Amino acid sequence: MKSTLAADLAKTLPAERITTDPAELIVYGYDGTWLERTPDAAVSVLSADEVAGVLRLASRLGIPVVPRGAGSGLAGGSVPLSGGIVLNLSLMTRIRSIDRLAMRAIVEAGVVNADLQAAVEREGLFYPPDPASLRQSTIGGNVATSASGPRCLKYGGTREYVLGLEVVLPTGDIIRTDTTAGNPLDLTRLFIGSEGTLGVITEVTLRLIAKPPARGTVMVTFASLDQASETVNAIIGTGIEPLALEMMDQATLRCVEAHLKAGLPLDVEAMLLIEVDGDEDTVDAQLAVVVEQCQAGGAVEVRPAASKTEAEELWKARRSISSSFGRLYPNKLGEDISVPRSAIPEMVRRIQQIAKQHDLMIPLFGHIGDGNLHPNVLCDLRDSAQMERVTLAARDIFAAAVQLGGTLSGEHGIGLLKREFIPMSLQPEPIELMRQIKASFDPQNILNPGKVFS
Amino acid sequence: MKSTLAADLAKTLPAERITTDPAELIVYGYDGTWLERTPDAAVSVLSADEVAGVLRLASRLGIPVVPRGAGSGLAGGSVPLSGGIVLNLSLMTRIRSIDRLAMRAIVEAGVVNADLQAAVEREGLFYPPDPASLRQSTIGGNVATSASGPRCLKYGGTREYVLGLEVVLPTGDIIRTDTTAGNPLDLTRLFIGSEGTLGVITEVTLRLIAKPPARGTVMVTFASLDQASETVNAIIGTGIEPLALEMMDQATLRCVEAHLKAGLPLDVEAMLLIEVDGDEDTVDAQLAVVVEQCQAGGAVEVRPAASKTEAEELWKARRSISSSFGRLYPNKLGEDISVPRSAIPEMVRRIQQIAKQHDLMIPLFGHIGDGNLHPNVLCDLRDSAQMERVTLAARDIFAAAVQLGGTLSGEHGIGLLKREFIPMSLQPEPIELMRQIKASFDPQNILNPGKVFS
Repeated sequence: MKSTLAADLAKTLPAERITTDPAELIVYGYDGTWLERTPDAAVSVLSADEVAGVLRLASRLGIPVVPRGAGSGLAGGSVPLSGGIVLNLSLMTRIRSIDRLAMRAIVEAGVVNADLQAAVEREGLFYPPDPASLRQSTIGGNVATSASGPRCLKYGGTREYVLGLEVVLPTGDIIRTDTTAGNPLDLTRLFIGSEGTLGVITEVTLRLIAKPPARGTVMVTFASLDQASETVNAIIGTGIEPLALEMMDQATLRCVEAHLKAGLPLDVEAMLLIEVDGDEDTVDAQLAVVVEQCQAGGAVEVRPAASKTEAEELWKARRSISSSFGRLYPNKLGEDISVPRSAIPEMVRRIQQIAKQHDLMIPLFGHIGDGNLHPNVLCDLRDSAQMERVTLAARDIFAAAVQLGGTLSGEHGIGLLKREFIPMSLQPEPIELMRQIKASFDPQNILNPGKVFS
Repeated sequence: MKSTLAADLAKTLPAERITTDPAELIVYGYDGTWLERTPDAAVSVLSADEVAGVLRLASRLGIPVVPRGAGSGLAGGSVPLSGGIVLNLSLMTRIRSIDRLAMRAIVEAGVVNADLQAAVEREGLFYPPDPASLRQSTIGGNVATSASGPRCLKYGGTREYVLGLEVVLPTGDIIRTDTTAGNPLDLTRLFIGSEGTLGVITEVTLRLIAKPPARGTVMVTFASLDQASETVNAIIGTGIEPLALEMMDQATLRCVEAHLKAGLPLDVEAMLLIEVDGDEDTVDAQLAVVVEQCQAGGAVEVRPAASKTEAEELWKARRSISSSFGRLYPNKLGEDISVPRSAIPEMVRRIQQIAKQHDLMIPLFGHIGDGNLHPNVLCDLRDSAQMERVTLAARDIFAAAVQLGGTLSGEHGIGLLKREFIPMSLQPEPIELMRQIKASFDPQNILNPGKVFS
């Protein structure tokens, strides 16, 4: 079967961009989770036409196609659990245009987020969405999983920046969606977050904004989580809209410090990273208010970054969280919940109880500004007794979030790991409507089967 | 049949909120277009449960239901052309909550846009979307037609502010959509702009932003449209993001002046209304740049508003455009196109040619900042020869827009008047996908039948 598949694929793609060699296929079989499965074949495409050729073939053969960007996903969305063809889009890295006047960029799906950011900033423009994986993850992957990042607090998430898409349907038809084009039904947004289950995104038209000239960053620590949480409310209550408001709990700080040796404080319950942006004067004024509020809130230490380099150092700690966990445990189950900001201290306490109860390490961090938290249950897949406790803890955490008025945030996608939580978070009717939409777009169920919809 | 219908409705609603009297029904049969049709019945609902009752009845009887807000639509979306029941949501006017910390509001569908704006501004918050109809039109109607307004240039449109909806499906099921709730498929956005064809929106959760403390308004006139257009590009090229950048052509100025007698200039080709907002200092600095650019661009007159009252006066001219047309001609066909900003002068010239060729008056205005233009073909329905020319002119205008790289903007909805343009603007595959989505949500086709999808 595999040799036939390779021969069939060779009719649409050059041989050097097709692989069916099991050793080579390993690199197309995992993502940021512990899930892995070697596909039957992997192809690297360079254009929407090539994607169309692969999808027509897969439709004819009735075999799964799993679109893949950088493979940095945190929910299993790009893991080919049903086998089939992995469609690697990471070579489609052209930034087609950056229009300074129209303030938009058109990019291929494989462009890395950080590369786009750098390119638009050279034009005096700004693309706010910044998932922690920004140096690896692709715009296509960001859109497919609706991944955003800290700055969505002020500027909105990836959803808010996608103006239109080029998408290849399972039939091989290449369509353009464009929210400004009198589309009565918003197909663009339907594809955002659909994790490759409705079509393959090949090109993205993005809205850009003017680059705020200045930015200021402050690191603050608090002896108690309640103080940290109240200070966040106090800051937002002043009318300031911070660019980002990130929180790391003590367990997270310990993991990151073990990894980076950056001299992070280990005796506090919470560290906040607060960033503001705007005109030079606005930033100075807002920083002063932030510092004042933090001091009034009982901060242990308030450290404004004196330079861009110092700010980068502070962010490095935040962005190293995921890899720092890997030093302590080989695996992790990253949850992804949203709770009302007022419920954050209680949520953190419950997570600590759950960790204790199940004898697990569950560091917690996240976008405290909008209540989007990422508790990570650290684990070792080889320890099956522990893994059972991990599953129980994950369910307990999610149940606690729902009880406190929270939801599954879905910022990391649903993929395979969050599928089972969907019925806890959505009513049956919307789920059924989503299933019908999936069936309309992909009647043969060849696109990333088993993902999102269990 | 009508008396049975009234009796059936009386089982779900109090009699005083049901009408089948032809004289009373007239007020539920028109919108901002010339289209009208008396429905079989009209009901005024106060809750999602009541809407559910009406929809269950309509599903059982297989009769059309046409949701209606203020009836100020410009595309026929709320006109009950297939008869049936008009579902009046304009009594659902409760602002359920304005959460200053979470920066969101939850409102019933019938809340008038201007009432919401005033309420959130009292809390120091800001809801940017501002259709010209803001003193009449409802949030539910704004969401259903995806109507926005001038400020979307800087702040994005209605689509960007809706966080979640309560929607009643034709089955009578009441669902909640919420983009932050790990919805893999974005049902919220699917309902935005769907004009009541997929479900009835009963409640809207809106994102709010901090209210910018200051605002500045400038009125500028140009002898030539090219100068106006180039100045707009020059302003945006400086990096300033105006809150609004509105244009009125000479024909529009003449109509408004005949109506308002406000002393508007009648000998210029274009008047621009430019608004900036932000901190006091930012506004002053940006106004200075705007004035400088306008003078450098050869403006005939540059008049900054000295006060809030003066600014309101200037905006009054813009918001009176639609009613001013009514003084000259009883009817109008309002087109709604988007062209690249660089194509605006050419588009305006083509519209002037089309007006001449078909012997019609076609004043033009719109959001020049993002290329969204509203040419209005003035007419008199009683003059059938003229109406034939109107139809030809409307098609010519749309064809010219497409030729210049433009699209049907859809800012006024598709309804009945724009239906025929959809196939000129979208590929067959997306249209087919939309039809399938409609069939999934409303298999009996009872919700606003004939609208959007011809």
